[in-house]
Amino acid sequence: MADELPSLDTESFRRQAHQVVDWMADYLARVGTLPVQPSLEPGAIRALVPSDAPEGPEPFERIVEDFERLIVPGLTHWGHPGFFAYFPANSSPPSILAEMLTATIGAQCMSWNTSPAATELEQVTMEWLRKMTGLPEAFTGVIQDTASTATLVALITARDQAVGRTGGQADGVSGLGHAPIRLPDLTVYASEEAHSSVAKGARMAGFSADRVRAIPADDAFAMRSEALAQAIAADRAAGLVPACVVATVGTTSSTGIDPVPDIADICEREKVWLHIDAAWGGSAAIVPEMRWIFAGVERADSVVFNPHKWMLVNFDCTAFFVRDTDALLRSFATSPVFLKAAYDDRVVNFRDWGIQLGRRFRALKLWFVIRTYGVQGLQAMIREHIRLGALLAGWVQEDPEFELMAPSPLALVVFRYVGREGGKTGGRDETPALEIDALNERLLAALHATGKIMLTQTRLKGKYAIRLALGHLTTTEDDVRKAWQLIKEAARKLVPGSPDPRIP
Amino acid sequence: MADELPSLDTESFRRQAHQVVDWMADYLARVGTLPVQPSLEPGAIRALVPSDAPEGPEPFERIVEDFERLIVPGLTHWGHPGFFAYFPANSSPPSILAEMLTATIGAQCMSWNTSPAATELEQVTMEWLRKMTGLPEAFTGVIQDTASTATLVALITARDQAVGRTGGQADGVSGLGHAPIRLPDLTVYASEEAHSSVAKGARMAGFSADRVRAIPADDAFAMRSEALAQAIAADRAAGLVPACVVATVGTTSSTGIDPVPDIADICEREKVWLHIDAAWGGSAAIVPEMRWIFAGVERADSVVFNPHKWMLVNFDCTAFFVRDTDALLRSFATSPVFLKAAYDDRVVNFRDWGIQLGRRFRALKLWFVIRTYGVQGLQAMIREHIRLGALLAGWVQEDPEFELMAPSPLALVVFRYVGREGGKTGGRDETPALEIDALNERLLAALHATGKIMLTQTRLKGKYAIRLALGHLTTTEDDVRKAWQLIKEAARKLVPGSPDPRIP
Repeated sequence: MADELPSLDTESFRRQAHQVVDWMADYLARVGTLPVQPSLEPGAIRALVPSDAPEGPEPFERIVEDFERLIVPGLTHWGHPGFFAYFPANSSPPSILAEMLTATIGAQCMSWNTSPAATELEQVTMEWLRKMTGLPEAFTGVIQDTASTATLVALITARDQAVGRTGGQADGVSGLGHAPIRLPDLTVYASEEAHSSVAKGARMAGFSADRVRAIPADDAFAMRSEALAQAIAADRAAGLVPACVVATVGTTSSTGIDPVPDIADICEREKVWLHIDAAWGGSAAIVPEMRWIFAGVERADSVVFNPHKWMLVNFDCTAFFVRDTDALLRSFATSPVFLKAAYDDRVVNFRDWGIQLGRRFRALKLWFVIRTYGVQGLQAMIREHIRLGALLAGWVQEDPEFELMAPSPLALVVFRYVGREGGKTGGRDETPALEIDALNERLLAALHATGKIMLTQTRLKGKYAIRLALGHLTTTEDDVRKAWQLIKEAARKLVPGSPDPRIP
Repeated sequence: MADELPSLDTESFRRQAHQVVDWMADYLARVGTLPVQPSLEPGAIRALVPSDAPEGPEPFERIVEDFERLIVPGLTHWGHPGFFAYFPANSSPPSILAEMLTATIGAQCMSWNTSPAATELEQVTMEWLRKMTGLPEAFTGVIQDTASTATLVALITARDQAVGRTGGQADGVSGLGHAPIRLPDLTVYASEEAHSSVAKGARMAGFSADRVRAIPADDAFAMRSEALAQAIAADRAAGLVPACVVATVGTTSSTGIDPVPDIADICEREKVWLHIDAAWGGSAAIVPEMRWIFAGVERADSVVFNPHKWMLVNFDCTAFFVRDTDALLRSFATSPVFLKAAYDDRVVNFRDWGIQLGRRFRALKLWFVIRTYGVQGLQAMIREHIRLGALLAGWVQEDPEFELMAPSPLALVVFRYVGREGGKTGGRDETPALEIDALNERLLAALHATGKIMLTQTRLKGKYAIRLALGHLTTTEDDVRKAWQLIKEAARKLVPGSPDPRIP
């Protein structure tokens, strides 16, 4: 009994792919009419899908039908105009088109040899990004999948550099005849407002959890550089070895911008690796009048930002820039005989620049997006989002029942509802803090129950706060106005008898 | 002067995407007519692309034209029927269709909350794969991007478990109040034939390079388990702490299959984490009569194989199974307030199961592929590739001028040309070893110069050998026959006056 052998039927594929394209275009047009996130019990979708794989083949039509019926209602729609949660992870038409081609070609970008065009286009587009963000020529770029990975790569490199300097491991590559690595003595520093990926990255890289220092932030949620200097001095005095400082340009909770010039002074003096996490905010550096956010970044050892967040490139696409590529290669290069190729000494093999051996051809979508919109188009978009962020922040500040919880230099607005009783001028203290926290938790739940808007929460100086992150291709002033209206309505409903919200 | 603001024009997208689909279907139909890899000097493509990003927008037509003109000629075509290099990284129609949808939706799969359907479909499809490969219920699956990453995840978990057991770090998550981690004492073991990602992973996880043991392999390129036992005993005697053994099911160089039952005995006795790297070979375990390759794997702590290699799923899609999910979570979980969501205590958040926070919705392509072909279809394909591998291995063995360099239990055939002078029966020793190595290097270069076939090389017991890896959706007996014909012709041309090659 011969089972049916899978084969390539390009004409069936053509027909099916055209059908899928129509679904895709329709989806992009109608996504705003769907609930932004599903209202489902955990396990609801799992219960609808057979628990065993089908033995025989199923027709395309049935699979697509199931996709529509089972999967789409279970999606959180990141491209919905009411999606203001986390940070945006944008899809855009040129990026989707490039992903279609990438998926079809299936070219590997692990070595130059495994697709020369993929490697060279990555070099070109990373140079474009370097120039667009004003980073100096001393930096070389490589695409990583996520900022988490890029930060881990930076921490591992910094770790190996530090251990090399202290004589613990002379050669991270050959691994022959050196004393054991002295990881327990190494320390890492980041602001208390730094992203969770920094502490997680340090843990993954083998730093002791109790050697990762959370440096206090100031009232604008930026690292206090004098506290960093003190922490490093104390660690040195205790015989420890500072290995890496991670400074953030645009924290996740509130767009705090660490004082990079001061931090760079400290790192240069102390000979400590300085990594810049600009995952979301970095894209804004392509706008000349926003270039100030990258002040001092030119003195860092490594920088990461995500074109997949605020530059219309599909997830995943993280731009990672490093100054000392030799240091990176000492930590990540491998050259087993089964990967060797002619030209190896004359080309870049990006497998040596990070964790993964296999790498997708991610540069293509970067190339499609930057060319489709042009630098000016991307600048215009970021300018518009920053304008909308300032507009919303202004509305929050003008409303006595809301409190703006942090400066809003980019396009993230963090606020909380303080209610009629707890107005802004002193009255806030009249409502117990825990009650305000609870009120805002209820507000967020009420907003999510509408299905029209999705936001996330954080805590700033211990206070529960709501984050509204702008940055989608499709975000308009009208969307922001509607969101604010919805927030006010939902807040007033939490307190019966409240007057109708005014529209700004 | 207002720059043009990027906007969403779904009808232009629809038109462009239809055009791209026709290119895609045409490409799949014609890829076999292209040179399998480009013949280019390093830097050739880079020189053709502007070194600065365009200021203004460029029309779709020009970008697509440049893609055709500059990029396609610089691609190595992994889907070419003459591509036998490395291991295959398959694209297939249903997988490409799913990638199109994934790119459009842009849903994140970092938390249940960020797209419940993405998390739950990942759970379902990983259960499908677990059952398909005969792994016991004790294993839980999660998708990783690559086997390199999955092996790093296993090594980090094993590291933290070992340190926890020796009292170095009681709690890898809270990081409070424990003694410094004692990484320098930890050891890792893998066969000398193990993939480079094992030693690289150990290095990245902070193990000392001189604590990574390469255990000798036997004549079939499988780890010698008694040598493993001896190495562990010697390390214990020296006061070191064995943390992880990585056993390989199907080595990269020659499909060596480590004796997992014996290794599992040792790991159980020694309480050492056993990770199975079945990156390529693992897919064959879905075929009942090949299930023997997974003997003993049910006793491992973690297992990795790549549906993106031999199961028609687009890169990247790695299946990672782990027994003690609590151990994994202790090493990788994070729960910053900005990621918290309702239901967190009742759902799986896959961000806690690996390195990256952001995760693509990779389960969709797995679902599309398994349903389109059915388990029987995938089994039939793997059976056919194994049949073709055996056929080719037979031809090599029958030819006195070629030598089969390793057993060929799956679909990788490793051979070398020994020439007329150095026939197989003793004569081999008449040609100096270095000359045979050089001859085969010339043979590989000559084959690549044809543009019709791409292979890679390795070294087995010090001897240069050529690898021919089968496994594409489109590979037919005719393709294998043509490849063998081409190899023989090229080999005979290296030695003037050789008779015409016989066709098997």
